[in-house]
Amino acid sequence: MSHFGDKLISASEQKQTVLVVGLDPQIELMPRSVRGSSNKEVATTIIDFNKIIIDAVAPYVAAIKPQLAYYEVFGSAGIFALEETIKYAKAKGLLIINDAKRGDIGPTAEAYARAFLSDSPMSGDAVTVNPFLGSDGIIPFVQKTDQAKGIFLLLKTSNPSSGELQDLRLDSGDFVYQEVATLIKQLSQGTIGTSGFSSVGAVVGATYPEIAKQLREDLPETLFLVPGYGAQGGNVQDLSCVFNADGNGAVISSTRAIIYSYMAERPEDWESLSKETMKEIIEAKAIRARDELNGIR
Amino acid sequence: MSHFGDKLISASEQKQTVLVVGLDPQIELMPRSVRGSSNKEVATTIIDFNKIIIDAVAPYVAAIKPQLAYYEVFGSAGIFALEETIKYAKAKGLLIINDAKRGDIGPTAEAYARAFLSDSPMSGDAVTVNPFLGSDGIIPFVQKTDQAKGIFLLLKTSNPSSGELQDLRLDSGDFVYQEVATLIKQLSQGTIGTSGFSSVGAVVGATYPEIAKQLREDLPETLFLVPGYGAQGGNVQDLSCVFNADGNGAVISSTRAIIYSYMAERPEDWESLSKETMKEIIEAKAIRARDELNGIR
Repeated sequence: MSHFGDKLISASEQKQTVLVVGLDPQIELMPRSVRGSSNKEVATTIIDFNKIIIDAVAPYVAAIKPQLAYYEVFGSAGIFALEETIKYAKAKGLLIINDAKRGDIGPTAEAYARAFLSDSPMSGDAVTVNPFLGSDGIIPFVQKTDQAKGIFLLLKTSNPSSGELQDLRLDSGDFVYQEVATLIKQLSQGTIGTSGFSSVGAVVGATYPEIAKQLREDLPETLFLVPGYGAQGGNVQDLSCVFNADGNGAVISSTRAIIYSYMAERPEDWESLSKETMKEIIEAKAIRARDELNGIR
Repeated sequence: MSHFGDKLISASEQKQTVLVVGLDPQIELMPRSVRGSSNKEVATTIIDFNKIIIDAVAPYVAAIKPQLAYYEVFGSAGIFALEETIKYAKAKGLLIINDAKRGDIGPTAEAYARAFLSDSPMSGDAVTVNPFLGSDGIIPFVQKTDQAKGIFLLLKTSNPSSGELQDLRLDSGDFVYQEVATLIKQLSQGTIGTSGFSSVGAVVGATYPEIAKQLREDLPETLFLVPGYGAQGGNVQDLSCVFNADGNGAVISSTRAIIYSYMAERPEDWESLSKETMKEIIEAKAIRARDELNGIR
């Protein structure tokens, strides 16, 4: 099977989960058992942390989603940690969605496509892409791997100010995000796998459920990557609108609410938790999140 | 002086130049004298190449502009090369504009701001930012450094498909890019330096001169970063519209036409050029570009 959409659907069906766990390492939020002494290298700390998360959540997730910003903060050391994390996740059979939100003119988009979908040690299985530059900045990603890898194009993001540009009303009566939806339809031609879904997906926030519901109807062959479950203020019931009638078509990403769940569970002593206890708390939280999401599909 | 706009204007006035040179290293376009043997490390090759460019162009540029994609292709080794390049350029007194086109939700934008404007070894003096997520994805960059560092927000990009989203006409009669211009005005409040320019700049392609001219009039306090001079099909005369009446207000970026100028100048033997000859050709080209741009201000 060499179609990203098929691989994601297959992983989701085999494990009976639509959960995606984000990997946003922040040193100051890690227990001392992971942070180590002050001369522990930052890359080693991040790798140790991510391995614990991956070990804890692997059976319960359709994919993992590293957020590039949290690695770039540490420069090349952070990117090295990302590469080692990706290597480890691949060895565990996990799909990797790099949340990079890249977007640039054609030749540069081609270089980004090589960085995230083919040549580089930080390549995963899919990457998030920003549509602001139009199709010639997106096509290089789509053409890179003949659907073996995928993209998620930002369509309607979850943040408070997403409407400032995305919800502008056009003279045609449509909204800007509907133009992006049309672009996704065009880019998806010839990219539909045997699962019925394209390798060109979309990032759709569930914080705007009415919009998400409409986009779900308009784009039945588009896999949605839905961020913000558990931490960005979304209601879990609102998420039901991002699935097709058969309960497919979306994966739901959760980051802080899972990877830092020990802070909420153990507010008084999270800093002194052992790695094993930390892993147990995260695993239990991932299971609850998987079950909660299966309950609303 | 700790205001990015003031620093850029000052560098431009002292050296009498509006030229910015892009640093997009591509190994296969380097002479063998730089590429070295097959076991030369990729980071060392990129650093060697960039140092030659920096040595050649430093007296003739207002800033240098590394394009992140060409470093990310090589993963952590590429980012390490970027860090060393930035260190070298800083030691030469050059301003650094990281062309990263980042954009994300608030907390992630905060992490990107740390990566590119403060904490990380790849921090420069400014970074390009994508506006698609709206103001809460941009404000963390603006607030990061109290104007000591700057951003260039994508406003109207130079690529063929830039109009697909940016030129959509709204029901108000305006175009999407004009909404971005309004956003820039709002974000610029309280950020104007003694030079009269804000630390919040804009990326404006000169491939659409009518639009660039209008934006220039609408945003007199906004510094424009104008890409594509020499290689993306822009006419040098078209560039005159990006300057204010006094010839200020824009820096013009050129990459391939300068850093790979030896390929055009010496099509038959560029691969066997010495580092010294390569540097001389690039330096001569940078001087011509500087003079040509000063001629149309």
